[in-house]
Amino acid sequence: MANSPSGESMTSRIVRVISAFDETRQVMPVAMLARRAGLPLSTAHRIVNELTAHGFLQREADGVRLGLRLWELASRSSAALGLKQIAMPFMEDIQAVVRQHTQLSVLREDEVLFIERLSSHGSVLNQAKVAGRLPVHISSSGMVMMAHSPRHVQEEYLQQQNLDASEEKHLRSAWAKMRLHGSASLPGAVVEDTTGIAVPVFGTGGTAVAAIGVVVPTGSEHISTTIPALMTAARGISRGLGVRAEAAGPHYQR
Amino acid sequence: MANSPSGESMTSRIVRVISAFDETRQVMPVAMLARRAGLPLSTAHRIVNELTAHGFLQREADGVRLGLRLWELASRSSAALGLKQIAMPFMEDIQAVVRQHTQLSVLREDEVLFIERLSSHGSVLNQAKVAGRLPVHISSSGMVMMAHSPRHVQEEYLQQQNLDASEEKHLRSAWAKMRLHGSASLPGAVVEDTTGIAVPVFGTGGTAVAAIGVVVPTGSEHISTTIPALMTAARGISRGLGVRAEAAGPHYQR
Repeated sequence: MANSPSGESMTSRIVRVISAFDETRQVMPVAMLARRAGLPLSTAHRIVNELTAHGFLQREADGVRLGLRLWELASRSSAALGLKQIAMPFMEDIQAVVRQHTQLSVLREDEVLFIERLSSHGSVLNQAKVAGRLPVHISSSGMVMMAHSPRHVQEEYLQQQNLDASEEKHLRSAWAKMRLHGSASLPGAVVEDTTGIAVPVFGTGGTAVAAIGVVVPTGSEHISTTIPALMTAARGISRGLGVRAEAAGPHYQR
Repeated sequence: MANSPSGESMTSRIVRVISAFDETRQVMPVAMLARRAGLPLSTAHRIVNELTAHGFLQREADGVRLGLRLWELASRSSAALGLKQIAMPFMEDIQAVVRQHTQLSVLREDEVLFIERLSSHGSVLNQAKVAGRLPVHISSSGMVMMAHSPRHVQEEYLQQQNLDASEEKHLRSAWAKMRLHGSASLPGAVVEDTTGIAVPVFGTGGTAVAAIGVVVPTGSEHISTTIPALMTAARGISRGLGVRAEAAGPHYQR
């Protein structure tokens, strides 16, 4: 139904229009949007007009952007909402103590997708942005989630990374250490002079469904207080997700 | 192009599928989705299959829900992002002092749309939810934004509300008072025993483009510290939006 001469459905064309926007290109003229979405200009204009009428796009002086209505719908009902709502008070607790960055993330297509971040004035530089992504291997949140993921997820990840034998061995041994400690600490992996510290949030399946972490200046990690604070918060979030208390932490703690 | 026998375009049908989800109905079987979107079941199934393949919807045990990919796109590029990013550190500052609820909102189709909310454990009951809406007249944020909106916006709002003469007079005089004080305080308007306090965030046009507010237990408003803290934060946010310092506050302050 509703296919273009090329056989592509209208649904995919609309998806491509919405997907053409990203952080570096939040507003663009329709001609650029058409180019990025790979659509004829007249098709792009028709879709833009309709999506604008529904508030899914909105016009700005220099082009169009995704509309507030689309954000409202996605924020109100998407899978991100439940996790964020449960985690937010616990993130506040951590943030009140650490006063740097506190962030909540999930694994998504072999990357870390950040769901929420709390920051303070004067916090150190931090590459993680809400709805932004980072590669797994440079993020403490990504690494600790991968360490606590099912074996088949780890193997798939390793295969896709095209690593040599020593790099693969390095990752496997880092994950083993993170499972032992129940946490990850990566100094300077994303930004020099900063350290990411993260712990897994366990779901009902006993594997990591999210990670909660902080980014602090290297040398001020206060590991002995930060990690217990993060673990306490992670257990609270797990309970909020419906996980029984005994299963909300790593096994070594029992 | 791509119209159904009823003459409705494919774009509107997709918009209706995505718009069928809300906070009270985040997951639903396709049959219910078809009913809520007013679409034939076969059409709904085709659209759902395609949107699912693109991550705009995702399948759950008991139906489908809006996908994380849609949230990611909307959060990364929508109009809500800029305002939220600028406001977040200032909201953190207020939250660190008030330890209840701190919220950021905009006016949208004669309602208050909440963009972000910070809360603590043990915060009082609060009806405002992220991406949720409240009627203007029961929300301190809504009232203070309307008070600092252009005259034609106020008149349109008053016309749409079908008020009698005394209710209209009451609103006009409340707004005049709010303009005088540069803030709004509404005890018990949404939840009994709680008070909403809000101030406008001024845009480059000199009218309110957002509001920042707190919800606290009635009797613990600490008005004399809360309002200056909110005004300081609002000025910071205005500057972040590119407003010159002289224009970032209400006129009476000069």
